[in-house]
Amino acid sequence: MKKNQISIKDIARLSGVSVATVSRVINENGRFSEETRQKVNEVIQKYQYETNSIAKSLRMSKSQTIGVLVPDINNEFFSVIVQKVESFFFKQGYSTIICNTAKDAEKEREYLKTLDGKMVDGLVCISGQEELSAELLKRPIPIVCIDRRPKINTNVAFIESNHYEGGFLATEELINKGCKEILLLTKQNNLSSVNERLYGYKDALQKHGLYPSEDRLVAVRNDGPTLETAQAAIERVLEKKLRFDGIFATNDWLALGALLALQKYGVQVPGEVKIVGFDNDTISQYCNPPLTTIEQDKETLADHACNMLLRMLNGEKIEREQHYSVPVRLIQRSTT
Amino acid sequence: MKKNQISIKDIARLSGVSVATVSRVINENGRFSEETRQKVNEVIQKYQYETNSIAKSLRMSKSQTIGVLVPDINNEFFSVIVQKVESFFFKQGYSTIICNTAKDAEKEREYLKTLDGKMVDGLVCISGQEELSAELLKRPIPIVCIDRRPKINTNVAFIESNHYEGGFLATEELINKGCKEILLLTKQNNLSSVNERLYGYKDALQKHGLYPSEDRLVAVRNDGPTLETAQAAIERVLEKKLRFDGIFATNDWLALGALLALQKYGVQVPGEVKIVGFDNDTISQYCNPPLTTIEQDKETLADHACNMLLRMLNGEKIEREQHYSVPVRLIQRSTT
Repeated sequence: MKKNQISIKDIARLSGVSVATVSRVINENGRFSEETRQKVNEVIQKYQYETNSIAKSLRMSKSQTIGVLVPDINNEFFSVIVQKVESFFFKQGYSTIICNTAKDAEKEREYLKTLDGKMVDGLVCISGQEELSAELLKRPIPIVCIDRRPKINTNVAFIESNHYEGGFLATEELINKGCKEILLLTKQNNLSSVNERLYGYKDALQKHGLYPSEDRLVAVRNDGPTLETAQAAIERVLEKKLRFDGIFATNDWLALGALLALQKYGVQVPGEVKIVGFDNDTISQYCNPPLTTIEQDKETLADHACNMLLRMLNGEKIEREQHYSVPVRLIQRSTT
Repeated sequence: MKKNQISIKDIARLSGVSVATVSRVINENGRFSEETRQKVNEVIQKYQYETNSIAKSLRMSKSQTIGVLVPDINNEFFSVIVQKVESFFFKQGYSTIICNTAKDAEKEREYLKTLDGKMVDGLVCISGQEELSAELLKRPIPIVCIDRRPKINTNVAFIESNHYEGGFLATEELINKGCKEILLLTKQNNLSSVNERLYGYKDALQKHGLYPSEDRLVAVRNDGPTLETAQAAIERVLEKKLRFDGIFATNDWLALGALLALQKYGVQVPGEVKIVGFDNDTISQYCNPPLTTIEQDKETLADHACNMLLRMLNGEKIEREQHYSVPVRLIQRSTT
């Protein structure tokens, strides 16, 4: 092995322990057995010269921990991304600590402070808030945001699905299948991700000579169980006898709620009303009938976020206002 | 307000900040604004005498953080419990940091060390391992285990569903509906929770004069996607033309995999084969047809675990081998 070519991974492999353990031995930080310490130090001594660069990259101030802020671990889109982040960073010798903010602004602030206190080296932030404030994000550590646009961009990278394209594709699918009066079913919030889906919806209507109308915009409260709230909202629409032949729901649980309401009122899906959801959650595949939906590519989103954060953790300078947009795709099933 | 009666909650309420913030101000630990510090200290000064007891209960060595080890945040049973734990402890002034161990023994060891390093005051442990080793659990902090039986019980409380009762109820439901040849569909592991369900299955058969047979025990590999693995396993059983008229699946994803295999082969459910799952995951309610299943009471499980841990955190001595068993119930739907 040549000078300077040995990495922490090599040391881990050669001593038969994990990267995280090597890091702890070098930093004399945390628990490890005497046997482990000897094994690791033997390998390090064997490649004496290179040790300095390792020690440098693992300077004492690093905790080899990253923090993840997530609005709701019981939401499949988030939980799958968080899993992938954990898995990626564990292989890189980092532990991931996850904080569930329950979409609550106070909790989000508290948990950011908790993570500060736990000295995390970097942060993956999936905010439950409409906008991430400057105060929250002006931390002296690398931060990557997923799916929620930060107000400011200093030292923050931002990765999201192409929500506009998703809204456009969903609406155009309904139009292509003959719908002319398309409800938009969404939650009462002002998240950038949801707003982009709305712009896509409006532009697709316009492209095909249709127009959005105020009474076809159904925005349900954001504080209850999504499915039940959506079902009740569509039942109210049916009772008001508002005419519609398609529903674009901005997530799959809203879509399923709408489907249940229509079935309860004997409205044929997709015969009389067609539905497109969003996210391609597992439920969309196995409900009855399976939902046509827009797939967000969780794999690529997590991958971009992790690689970006790792580059920043390794001291690479990332330009301001870095923004990745990941393509979505239409999954055609039985509701269109 | 009488002497010694003021609590940290009262201080939080009177100063209009959260319990966690009061804790940080008292301990001069973490971030808070000068304004917040003044507000809190005003309230504390107003009730001068009582401050000592607060300071004592919030001694500097406490981090007001608890750790949660969870095998898979993408499993609804776990993610709902973790959410409830977070919510409970946030109200008590604790932050919760969650570590996802991906059912991996090495990760579980690493994350226990990470949580040690982060100085958590207590631990909720839902292990992915068959048995929690003495080494892992002999920590000097209160620990509550959910759903996985620890090998040793020093300073550890253990809370689980009555899995035996669940296995018994599921099997008896199939027998009551006329099944005589009941497959057991499970994963290849040796978790105490799953073993108990098996004992329940065997005892219910025996009670009704039926007998378990080796070839009706289908144990699928534990390392792949549950649904697809179960579907493939039941397809193999169908190709071997093994006779059976009922399936007890030890979780809902196994049950859904079995349902899809039967539907693919044109076997009528529940006409020719009946199915009972386990957990009452959301998918069991919305798949087609909806699954009969055994509900685990996540609310009560989380509640017991949190109250137990809080009592230990507050210095109460909990007797050894404390063990709570939470009742389950049968949810009858359309597969029986």
